[in-house]
Amino acid sequence: MPIDQTRKQIADAAVEAVFGIRLTTDALPGEPASAAELREKLMTQAFADSWTRTALDQKTRSLITVAVIATLGSDRELRAHVGGALKLGATPDELVDLFIHLGAYIGAPRAGAGWAVASEVLVKHAKRTKDASQ
Amino acid sequence: MPIDQTRKQIADAAVEAVFGIRLTTDALPGEPASAAELREKLMTQAFADSWTRTALDQKTRSLITVAVIATLGSDRELRAHVGGALKLGATPDELVDLFIHLGAYIGAPRAGAGWAVASEVLVKHAKRTKDASQ
Amino acid sequence: MPIDQTRKQIADAAVEAVFGIRLTTDALPGEPASAAELREKLMTQAFADSWTRTALDQKTRSLITVAVIATLGSDRELRAHVGGALKLGATPDELVDLFIHLGAYIGAPRAGAGWAVASEVLVKHAKRTKDASQ
Amino acid sequence: MPIDQTRKQIADAAVEAVFGIRLTTDALPGEPASAAELREKLMTQAFADSWTRTALDQKTRSLITVAVIATLGSDRELRAHVGGALKLGATPDELVDLFIHLGAYIGAPRAGAGWAVASEVLVKHAKRTKDASQ
Amino acid sequence: MPIDQTRKQIADAAVEAVFGIRLTTDALPGEPASAAELREKLMTQAFADSWTRTALDQKTRSLITVAVIATLGSDRELRAHVGGALKLGATPDELVDLFIHLGAYIGAPRAGAGWAVASEVLVKHAKRTKDASQ
Amino acid sequence: MPIDQTRKQIADAAVEAVFGIRLTTDALPGEPASAAELREKLMTQAFADSWTRTALDQKTRSLITVAVIATLGSDRELRAHVGGALKLGATPDELVDLFIHLGAYIGAPRAGAGWAVASEVLVKHAKRTKDASQ
Repeated sequence: MPIDQTRKQIADAAVEAVFGIRLTTDALPGEPASAAELREKLMTQAFADSWTRTALDQKTRSLITVAVIATLGSDRELRAHVGGALKLGATPDELVDLFIHLGAYIGAPRAGAGWAVASEVLVKHAKRTKDASQ
Repeated sequence: MPIDQTRKQIADAAVEAVFGIRLTTDALPGEPASAAELREKLMTQAFADSWTRTALDQKTRSLITVAVIATLGSDRELRAHVGGALKLGATPDELVDLFIHLGAYIGAPRAGAGWAVASEVLVKHAKRTKDASQ
Repeated sequence: MPIDQTRKQIADAAVEAVFGIRLTTDALPGEPASAAELREKLMTQAFADSWTRTALDQKTRSLITVAVIATLGSDRELRAHVGGALKLGATPDELVDLFIHLGAYIGAPRAGAGWAVASEVLVKHAKRTKDASQ
Repeated sequence: MPIDQTRKQIADAAVEAVFGIRLTTDALPGEPASAAELREKLMTQAFADSWTRTALDQKTRSLITVAVIATLGSDRELRAHVGGALKLGATPDELVDLFIHLGAYIGAPRAGAGWAVASEVLVKHAKRTKDASQ
Repeated sequence: MPIDQTRKQIADAAVEAVFGIRLTTDALPGEPASAAELREKLMTQAFADSWTRTALDQKTRSLITVAVIATLGSDRELRAHVGGALKLGATPDELVDLFIHLGAYIGAPRAGAGWAVASEVLVKHAKRTKDASQ
Repeated sequence: MPIDQTRKQIADAAVEAVFGIRLTTDALPGEPASAAELREKLMTQAFADSWTRTALDQKTRSLITVAVIATLGSDRELRAHVGGALKLGATPDELVDLFIHLGAYIGAPRAGAGWAVASEVLVKHAKRTKDASQ
């Protein structure tokens, strides 16, 4: 079934709250038109159906997301969600604790690989924060 | 290298804070004596090295643990940690939010299988709470 | 956001077309009321958002589902979807070909474990068909 | 045991039918000579033992392959098999449906990562088709 | 392509060397006849193509097999291969070392779940050995 | 709990025995200071708690590590540990046998992807050995 526009708008707002940007779901040139529906569904599945809920606060949900995506090993998504976690109020020390926990629960290779991605985001973030304060 | 007794005692205390019980690490009859070292290492890796940290609070760490173990699909550990999450102050509604999130991030089959395990723990917990209040 | 009733009804119809049954999404006694929303979301994510599409035919989508769930190793879901595949017109020989393919692509242990589940469904199905024809 | 030449030739033909190219299995300079046997075994395992079967048609087997490899997250193999799927008659819209299905069954991060790879192949394919028709 | 009888016989002999038993590959009543080919392929893929090689010794290959299957989480296969490892000369202490290593590399939950399976095999083996010596 | 210096030194020595180098665990500029503790924990978990054990010899443990990390799909760690395996006495032919085994047990795509990484290490190693002997 098609994505209704209300779900799409709700997802857009949730994406903006997490990442600080709008994500386009348009099909790229060369993709079939239906690729837009694919992007809408992946986006609403996460951002209309889950990120809009209120029993968990957004920072906790964000930390859970980082942990799960590091377990799956999806680096591009991990990069985005570490940035999201910082935006939603997680501290670098909380992220260190999270990856120490992953070391115990998913093993050193995957936890280390995830930390390498997270670290890049933290280092850029520290630089931007420092530059902004000068 | 052998587990030093301080690490072991710290892990014992952390296990008790999460699960409300002491875990034995003794070798079973028929196992080699070194099986005790295996159990100590698995326990200290998680409970001395990670659960003792303080940047993340214990309830958040517990919710992260539930999410990661559901992603790995280890049912017995999941059962224990859903109980731990309730003990550390997570509510059933927070656990529902967590598994809705997993539906989006790891897919319906694994999220549904994880919820089946979590649900059993919640149902028993509700029954115990009800019995205790009568 | 809540599941709207149209999505729910569309998912109900798609579930019935695949499995021949209605699935309840009600919360169990002892679960929080929000568990119904979790079940609705897992169901609509798959059955309103994907099974209703028409570029792939239902039998092909069903075979893909069996292959993916065997790769994930979710036995309960696998059992249901092997039954669904038979209902949607897949033959036992097609399922054998699928698991031979999985042997090459995900390795013998997972393919063999998946076949053990699929075989149980086929054997029951063969027995039912035979009984019905007597 | 060594690969017999008949199996090797059957696999070569099946590879050519799927990808439109011959794959060499020769050892690279610096690899041990036995690396050729490794490549032959990986190739015959898939292409002599499975792709030669006839209960599933090749297009369906190809779509199943794309779904399974996206679930495993092996990008290089995914790229090759999305190309193979197009060669065997799958349409871009069928691939969109497949990745929408993966969104529901393996979660948005892995489905999105897989689509990013598939999309590159589709975009190049569209460009080549357009250039060829001018 | 069909399994040739030479490959099948070589695999039979390798299975017997690892597990001490013959495995039937016959189709079960209610399975299609082609299920025999599936079982033959899964068996020859491992036992004709790999276990017959000689660069690695059988005990080392067996320990590697145990480690990989514990990582995949396939319990039934793990049980068989822990038995195989003991038959091929691995000691219980070597298996303890292997699962301590898995604790570090795949995390405590999966290593602990794998050890639970391995431990059952060791305990039965110790009992059998003790009974036999009385 | 903090890493005690004895565990750290033991891990340093074990890392040097496997990889021939010292690994720094210092926090990078822009990372929080606690990142050093994360690196120490990931390192001691593997190198103080497991690599120091003596029931398995180091070459066997190294081959097991390569197999497990190829199964997890962590390329950077795989590269390091293939180098480690060569340093600890594994031969290129043994690594070929290992990846043929993985073909059967984890499937051709992951075994092939792992071999692509291992092959790069072997080719460089062959070149260095050849250069050194001239």
